[in-house]
Amino acid sequence: MIYSFAKPVENLIRELMKLPSVGPKSAQRLAFHFIERDKTEIETLCRALRDVKYKLRVCSVCGNLSEEEVCPVCRDSSRDRSMICVVSDVGDLTAIEKAGTYKGLYHVLGGLISPMDGIGPEDLNIDSLKNRVLAGTSELIIATNPTVNGETTALYIARAFSGSGVKITRIAYGLPVGYSLEYADEITLSRAIAGRREI
Amino acid sequence: MIYSFAKPVENLIRELMKLPSVGPKSAQRLAFHFIERDKTEIETLCRALRDVKYKLRVCSVCGNLSEEEVCPVCRDSSRDRSMICVVSDVGDLTAIEKAGTYKGLYHVLGGLISPMDGIGPEDLNIDSLKNRVLAGTSELIIATNPTVNGETTALYIARAFSGSGVKITRIAYGLPVGYSLEYADEITLSRAIAGRREI
Repeated sequence: MIYSFAKPVENLIRELMKLPSVGPKSAQRLAFHFIERDKTEIETLCRALRDVKYKLRVCSVCGNLSEEEVCPVCRDSSRDRSMICVVSDVGDLTAIEKAGTYKGLYHVLGGLISPMDGIGPEDLNIDSLKNRVLAGTSELIIATNPTVNGETTALYIARAFSGSGVKITRIAYGLPVGYSLEYADEITLSRAIAGRREI
Repeated sequence: MIYSFAKPVENLIRELMKLPSVGPKSAQRLAFHFIERDKTEIETLCRALRDVKYKLRVCSVCGNLSEEEVCPVCRDSSRDRSMICVVSDVGDLTAIEKAGTYKGLYHVLGGLISPMDGIGPEDLNIDSLKNRVLAGTSELIIATNPTVNGETTALYIARAFSGSGVKITRIAYGLPVGYSLEYADEITLSRAIAGRREI
């Protein structure tokens, strides 16, 4: 008889292989890493894993992840409540927050329109955005990724709110700061030229 | 105020960053993967993680990981009990088992001698190997990696058992099967020639 790992090791490797971009080799390496770790470290990780499932909820106003019914951004009375920045997901919201200059509110769509994956506007958090815009918002900044799905979603939202009197803007296309013009692709360069501003 | 992720998300990202070769970006990607997963899937993963800490023990005979006091390989009466294959860790034991031709027993050192990392022979599972050899073993096959630490450990074990009457062998060096001679390094080629066998 040929022996393999003890059952608990096999089980863990199988579970770890379900993670994104983790193959059999890295799953085995990870499993042995966990076997070496202290019990308390494993317990801490398990608590952190369970907490994201049991302590997190979706903010009822903007769709951000939050421990409360309404997220801290929406509750912050010092933020500019006339602007809503529309993002695809919580990671993008946090990226804009880290930049540190935007002081308005957000709206998290929970994805992008993607006909290839069968994701339509009805699958996104757009209905509640309508109510927020009706309640008095002066500007909607569409900050979806400059990809096909991001553009499709931006266009859909722009059209959906075109008659509502709200100002709709799109974040600028152009060269990333510190980037070399020489390596920029033609579309980015064209957009950078078209979006030029007086200095 | 600049907002970041909700606390459970931050906690999980911090815990995931403790994993080998997981940086801030992959930790964030993994965290959002877990947020998307079902509660039952998270519970299954946590159970698998806890099981490797609470259900596994080290085989009191060979050092393999096992759910019982003595591992299935050591308990298997059909195995050739006169041969012991010495390996660095359980991963190597399983790799040899998968090859499917070795039918003797094993001894897991739990590492390799590594002066750079301050790991000496006294940190490895060598004492219990002495008792096993004394109890009547005819061959000790040293199957540590062909690396500096693997060679050092092999040499140490060979010397430690040189007077005990047991036959001590080292797994063969040579070209990996299916490999191209053209790309082999000089040391491997020299070893392959020195280790030639009549056909």
